[in-house]
Amino acid sequence: MDAVKVIEIKKSVFEDNDKDAAALRWSLKGRGVYLLNLMSSPGSGKTTTLIQLLNRIKGKLRVAVMEADIDSDVDAVKILEATGVPSIQLHTGGMCHLDAEMTRQGLASLPETGIGNLTDGSDSSTAEAGLDLVILENVGNLVCPAEFDTGACRNAMILSVPEGHDKPLKYPLMFTVCDLVIINKIDVLPYFDFDMEKCAEYVHMRNPKAEIIPICARTGEGVDALADWILKEVEAWKSAPAC
Amino acid sequence: MDAVKVIEIKKSVFEDNDKDAAALRWSLKGRGVYLLNLMSSPGSGKTTTLIQLLNRIKGKLRVAVMEADIDSDVDAVKILEATGVPSIQLHTGGMCHLDAEMTRQGLASLPETGIGNLTDGSDSSTAEAGLDLVILENVGNLVCPAEFDTGACRNAMILSVPEGHDKPLKYPLMFTVCDLVIINKIDVLPYFDFDMEKCAEYVHMRNPKAEIIPICARTGEGVDALADWILKEVEAWKSAPAC
Repeated sequence: MDAVKVIEIKKSVFEDNDKDAAALRWSLKGRGVYLLNLMSSPGSGKTTTLIQLLNRIKGKLRVAVMEADIDSDVDAVKILEATGVPSIQLHTGGMCHLDAEMTRQGLASLPETGIGNLTDGSDSSTAEAGLDLVILENVGNLVCPAEFDTGACRNAMILSVPEGHDKPLKYPLMFTVCDLVIINKIDVLPYFDFDMEKCAEYVHMRNPKAEIIPICARTGEGVDALADWILKEVEAWKSAPAC
Repeated sequence: MDAVKVIEIKKSVFEDNDKDAAALRWSLKGRGVYLLNLMSSPGSGKTTTLIQLLNRIKGKLRVAVMEADIDSDVDAVKILEATGVPSIQLHTGGMCHLDAEMTRQGLASLPETGIGNLTDGSDSSTAEAGLDLVILENVGNLVCPAEFDTGACRNAMILSVPEGHDKPLKYPLMFTVCDLVIINKIDVLPYFDFDMEKCAEYVHMRNPKAEIIPICARTGEGVDALADWILKEVEAWKSAPAC
């Protein structure tokens, strides 16, 4: 290892996002709206996973989806057509992640959340929420989204088999902040050098408490377990005193 | 499409990076060092592709590699061990991309480039370069790296088959700024719904001049064509008056 030079280059400076995130989380708790932040690389299957998941939980929870994308709106259209679940598209205007204020702007455009804008008086703590769960599909990126607390109750991420089992070594923060790691595309395991045990070991190096659920979103294999996870999560959170 | 709300949320403001990039490109031209900026999603096979490529071109060009990563140094170690090509690891300290100044810092730590630091007087325009080509493996990310000109002569990116052929629709800027799109993992085409013709159509919507080279980095299929592309590129650039 000695032959390789390692150079530390400059670090970015972030705004104070944590306060906004804590405030948003508190607002959501007050309204009984559970927010799940779903992250992954581009092409790992977030939208296909969501379609399978939503079709299993939409009869049990009042749910909506926010699809963050840089430019297109194909994902929100796809979700709505395939599930009937209310879906909005958030354009980030080139931004590679969502922060808590951007997430609030998205929630404020879903009237059923009871979240309004802080500045124009439409955010009232007495508003009644008509939703149990909002799932935010973050921008496809393993770096920046992990650095910004969106105000979500939980973070989840999808790692797909073709990406390789070493990703927790290379994108440490993403795996540290996630409570749930969904391993997608398990149907192609025979064609890739993906070691499920090593992957679990690396995930738990970053976050010993992370749960791992292997699925194939294309066929629906394993998605029942994912649906159970989210149903139990929302139920436990609703009856708990704080997020 | 009417049923889907589209919300434009705030755009980021970037520093003035273009001037730095132009200056760096000029310095590199003066020293005859061609810089290639290689981008992709996490797990698309950048490092494996580089190993195959370097083993084909290292006898013909004096080449070095800069591996940008958030934290680990596995890639530079892997490159050096598999090819013997000088490789350095650039730690970005959590940053999701490299800008021109960060790239310059990397180049300055490869003495053979003749690039020094502007501030301490070690950057001398009379320095003679001992390298023909430096390949920069950017951070695995389809968003931020596309937004920052590194000072490279050309941008290339790898799209792997499992990510899907729709990526040029969802990450438009990445495909707009790339002169070469390498389609990797073509050995698993039978197992994915990847339409090569549609992919080419979408790539050319973003950049009509982009070249597309399909490869399988694992087996080496198609990498000869990639080696030819880079050899011709460097030759043409060396004899041209400006980058």
